[in-house]
Amino acid sequence: MTTEHATGDEPRIDTEELGRLLLGSWPEQRLSSRRLAGTEAMQRIEGLGMDEHRERVLSQLHLLVEDGQVHRAFPTRLGGQDDHGGNIAAFEELVLADPSVQIKSGVQWGLFGAAILHLGTEYHHDTFLPDAMSLAVPGAFAMTETGHGSDVSSIATTATFDPDTNEFVIHTPFRAAWKDYLGNAAVHGTAATVFAQLITRGVNHGVHCFYVPIRGADGAFLPGIGGEDDGLKGGLNGIDNGRLHFDSVRVPRRNLLNRYGDVDADGVYSSPIASPGRRFFTMLGTLVQGRVSLDGAATAASALALQIAITYGSQRRQFTTASPDREEVILDYGRHQRRLVPRLATAYAQFFAHDRLLTAFDSVFSGEGDTEDGRQNLETLAAAFKPLSTWQALDTLQEAREACGGAGFLTENRLTSLRADLDVYVTFEGDNNVLLQLVGKRLLGDFARQFSGADAGTLARFAAEQFADRAVTSSGLRSLAQTVVDFGSTARSVGRLRDEESQRQLLTDRVEAMVAEVAGQLRPASKQGPEEAAAAFNRNQNELIEAARAHAELLQWESFTAGLATIVDPDTRRVLTWVRDLFGLGLVEKHLAWYLANGRLAPQRAHAVTAYVDRLIGRLRPHLLDLVEAFGYGPEHVRAPIASGAEAERQEEAAEYQRRLRESGLAPVPEKKVAAEARARGVAAANG
Amino acid sequence: MTTEHATGDEPRIDTEELGRLLLGSWPEQRLSSRRLAGTEAMQRIEGLGMDEHRERVLSQLHLLVEDGQVHRAFPTRLGGQDDHGGNIAAFEELVLADPSVQIKSGVQWGLFGAAILHLGTEYHHDTFLPDAMSLAVPGAFAMTETGHGSDVSSIATTATFDPDTNEFVIHTPFRAAWKDYLGNAAVHGTAATVFAQLITRGVNHGVHCFYVPIRGADGAFLPGIGGEDDGLKGGLNGIDNGRLHFDSVRVPRRNLLNRYGDVDADGVYSSPIASPGRRFFTMLGTLVQGRVSLDGAATAASALALQIAITYGSQRRQFTTASPDREEVILDYGRHQRRLVPRLATAYAQFFAHDRLLTAFDSVFSGEGDTEDGRQNLETLAAAFKPLSTWQALDTLQEAREACGGAGFLTENRLTSLRADLDVYVTFEGDNNVLLQLVGKRLLGDFARQFSGADAGTLARFAAEQFADRAVTSSGLRSLAQTVVDFGSTARSVGRLRDEESQRQLLTDRVEAMVAEVAGQLRPASKQGPEEAAAAFNRNQNELIEAARAHAELLQWESFTAGLATIVDPDTRRVLTWVRDLFGLGLVEKHLAWYLANGRLAPQRAHAVTAYVDRLIGRLRPHLLDLVEAFGYGPEHVRAPIASGAEAERQEEAAEYQRRLRESGLAPVPEKKVAAEARARGVAAANG
Repeated sequence: MTTEHATGDEPRIDTEELGRLLLGSWPEQRLSSRRLAGTEAMQRIEGLGMDEHRERVLSQLHLLVEDGQVHRAFPTRLGGQDDHGGNIAAFEELVLADPSVQIKSGVQWGLFGAAILHLGTEYHHDTFLPDAMSLAVPGAFAMTETGHGSDVSSIATTATFDPDTNEFVIHTPFRAAWKDYLGNAAVHGTAATVFAQLITRGVNHGVHCFYVPIRGADGAFLPGIGGEDDGLKGGLNGIDNGRLHFDSVRVPRRNLLNRYGDVDADGVYSSPIASPGRRFFTMLGTLVQGRVSLDGAATAASALALQIAITYGSQRRQFTTASPDREEVILDYGRHQRRLVPRLATAYAQFFAHDRLLTAFDSVFSGEGDTEDGRQNLETLAAAFKPLSTWQALDTLQEAREACGGAGFLTENRLTSLRADLDVYVTFEGDNNVLLQLVGKRLLGDFARQFSGADAGTLARFAAEQFADRAVTSSGLRSLAQTVVDFGSTARSVGRLRDEESQRQLLTDRVEAMVAEVAGQLRPASKQGPEEAAAAFNRNQNELIEAARAHAELLQWESFTAGLATIVDPDTRRVLTWVRDLFGLGLVEKHLAWYLANGRLAPQRAHAVTAYVDRLIGRLRPHLLDLVEAFGYGPEHVRAPIASGAEAERQEEAAEYQRRLRESGLAPVPEKKVAAEARARGVAAANG
Repeated sequence: MTTEHATGDEPRIDTEELGRLLLGSWPEQRLSSRRLAGTEAMQRIEGLGMDEHRERVLSQLHLLVEDGQVHRAFPTRLGGQDDHGGNIAAFEELVLADPSVQIKSGVQWGLFGAAILHLGTEYHHDTFLPDAMSLAVPGAFAMTETGHGSDVSSIATTATFDPDTNEFVIHTPFRAAWKDYLGNAAVHGTAATVFAQLITRGVNHGVHCFYVPIRGADGAFLPGIGGEDDGLKGGLNGIDNGRLHFDSVRVPRRNLLNRYGDVDADGVYSSPIASPGRRFFTMLGTLVQGRVSLDGAATAASALALQIAITYGSQRRQFTTASPDREEVILDYGRHQRRLVPRLATAYAQFFAHDRLLTAFDSVFSGEGDTEDGRQNLETLAAAFKPLSTWQALDTLQEAREACGGAGFLTENRLTSLRADLDVYVTFEGDNNVLLQLVGKRLLGDFARQFSGADAGTLARFAAEQFADRAVTSSGLRSLAQTVVDFGSTARSVGRLRDEESQRQLLTDRVEAMVAEVAGQLRPASKQGPEEAAAAFNRNQNELIEAARAHAELLQWESFTAGLATIVDPDTRRVLTWVRDLFGLGLVEKHLAWYLANGRLAPQRAHAVTAYVDRLIGRLRPHLLDLVEAFGYGPEHVRAPIASGAEAERQEEAAEYQRRLRESGLAPVPEKKVAAEARARGVAAANG
């Protein structure tokens, strides 16, 4: 039905330029890590038992240290490079080797090491960082408890200062306060950064972090410390997750990582941040890199899945439709394209969105953009993108697996294991629903600040400001203000849906209207006391989370659109513009009910959206192989036999066999044909 | 926010009556198998290596034989009971023990044994069935090839009759024709029912099935036979899937399972079914039970997942909202309810729909309803329900896993393993998309037959007929004919959405309109030759599959509605009616864009749908624990520590600790409170 590759008048993608663009702002670091991820020593061996897998991953972490891949974010004076963006870019690529390697590295250097770095001060850096960096001390990041995951501020482990001995006493008061799900806790960890309520002089100063040795050289727990193995998990079994509990364990006072809060020898507490709430969020904010790296790793896994499914789909044949002699390539089926091509467009959007997030992260962590605004922008972007990309990874891996049929279910073709490993990405480092709720609350805040009592002039100014390039660097609520009214009628009357501005307006308007709707529902209740306010919030929770998702989608779309402008080759820009349009109109199609129910699109326009999405998919068909090639993954990264060309060889062999059989004249005749001929002879006989 | 159990004026569910209803038409067989599934010997041990797991499952199949659980469908004269419906009901329950046991049983008795039973004749029954039944001969069902899964009629393995030796020669012509993904093929199988193109006297009579021994007593392949292990899979690793190929392997002529096609000693072919096409579909039709049992097993797995997540959600507390002293139960959060309650409604719909399918299956296979219509009805129901329930199982297991957070990711809590095992249910025994396309084609056929050139009177009669109780026994296209027009205006004007008839009309009208739309698109193309017809079909493939899904949803809704009428206890019927309304309006909400874009609902009605769905969810909140209790699974079936009450105990222990601490007067004071008091003292001092 369509050709495999673009020919003739079709634009041709410059896959090299596009590939460079997809590598993002830290291409060297990314490629260096990707090369390592392509070596056998770093890769997963399927079918290992849990214990063996854990040991292999630990040894792979040692290889990372040897290779110098994991210290980029640490201080130059300790052998690092103070390169925060490049460090995360490199980490993300490890997902190609084995997600367990990525996440266990994240535990060691992105959580345990980063807690020492960002929550500690010079003493801690000098004393604890070198062994954390070298993996001489594998460490657990002991924040989550069995009873408290998303609500960190309510953890129940206590760290009570004892002025008599100048020590903190770390204590677990009950079973629900056991630290849980901690990587490195079950077997390998010999220390932990333990989060606990800091209590001194009878006052609870909230959650702080303490450096606590947990195992001796013999691997046994130190006195007062106990734990359990979390055992088998749905994935990531190369990581030894476990539980820890503390029975009045004493650590020296200076094991408090005291950057944001300190206690002197008399037990007097001090902090550079007066508000306990702000202090808590500042401390947690230093740990945002986990979310950032999950967004990148999830995007890489989605891209890999699409490369496998699209390659296989372009070789696999099944059913004859138009021609009786050759079966169709399954990627030419309308349904198959509908399953894979919009997901490819989303993966592209995520690459651009992720680079924006990574740039924001680097800006804050390098100190350059470390402002209140910069931090809030970063946290909103991370809380917006991580849920979308991690859910999308599960969705894409599953669709790719199904699109490869039984072959997709074989472990050798990687899709099922990747999906199993990435499953927990949607609930760890911030549960996706909780993160989107955070975004929603920020949007409500922006709305309240910017629109309560604003007159038309203010709104217009706000809108104008949004359209300046500030829009792509800030993550807050956008407004179309007046323009949306004009657009409303425009969209209903003319065929401008495919215009960039139309897409922007449709997506922006939806977020703003949804936030306004929720705000309108909450306002009256807020005046009726906390109970009614809580009930009203709860009634609108689902809608608020959907508004946050819409906002995150808009931010992804903006990032993609900004990225288009940087493409030099006009053909490449043209094809990528179709991909962006498919992403944008795909979002409009997905949320069509909202646009219709809220009078933003008339019914006939709604049908046009679907028709145009279909047209874009058809237009992209000849470019699909180029679009996945541009991801830049080699066979050492893909490693799925079905995407190796084996299917094409099998198809060729079968077709060749059938061709020779036909030519030999020995091919059996189908019964149906014999019967038809017999009928024809009967008719001839009757007529003769 | 809401109470745990129904109290006061709330209706109370009679969980015993409801439980009996959910057991369906073969309660004894189901309970007997469920009891066995509750024994440790039958259950999965997590973390076994692939080889051990395979051996354990094989030994569990021997236990099934000993227990007499698996022979119900076989002839009474061979020790069976000719009980087809009860047999499938019992099989389905095995999913609770280990899906590998369910599927390996299905391979042995539902595919290998059933092929001998349904495609063979007396000689085959006498010769091969006893050993298949007793598991003396584990067998592979060798239909699928590496190159052909969904398109069975194109398989390339040949069985050529040699009149000189009175034998068939089974041959694999090229790599793509290797049999693949066959349970029992990698290790345990000593025979196989092999599907191949039957060729005699130079004519290919299409796909037939042959009984072929494949391994000797020593476990080695017999001469001419080779194979490979499919190795690790994304799940179901208790089954030894593998590949087989045949190098001119000879079997006696009478190893042809000759119920639907035979060859005499001279090589003359004969068949009771003249048309090769009808013959092929009749043969495949005898194997529908696989699809039937997957529908039931997928429904059971969804129910189990919901029981785990809802039990945990009713005990787990996180975040304080209205009251500062006690955290909220997470099942009281609006978002959490939105995630779980509609899925519970769908599981309920599936229970009723599955019993309808099972009854149709039993009717055909017992011979009682074995008519052309009966068979078509059965195949349509199976092709409609199996895709929906297997996809729904993956969706529900995943949502339940996420709703349980990190605990949901632990293997001990079962959700991840069940999901991994059920993954392949969506592509085997008929790929879900291919099955829905079959349903879609049937709908197009019904449409063409019933509406081409029909006048208004015909349409009205057709509609009237549909509303007779025939509607719940036939699976074909429904029509509302005239009534839909009246309804269109009704729905736009009055608040009748919650009425049963309104739901029926909205769902029915959508199917009919979608089918009519596709038919209208295909008609002109069909006159322009096969190439344009194929292209037009392809352009509409996605829409046709969506129409089939809509039809399947309608059939589920009809089954649920018919089931409601059988409930005796009025309170129970009242609550179940809310569940059915949630299912029905949930479908309308899911497809709201269609209703709006096609003028079936006005925008204000659309908002009312969502509002009413929300209201129903709230109304069901006090009944959720009863609704999952009615599934009838005991702790020996649930086996998830998080659903055992452990979470409630932990919460109680923590609350008790906090209470005692508060009463002791030794509780540390929060810094925030100290600061507030200090400020207050400052103000007092200033004022003093």
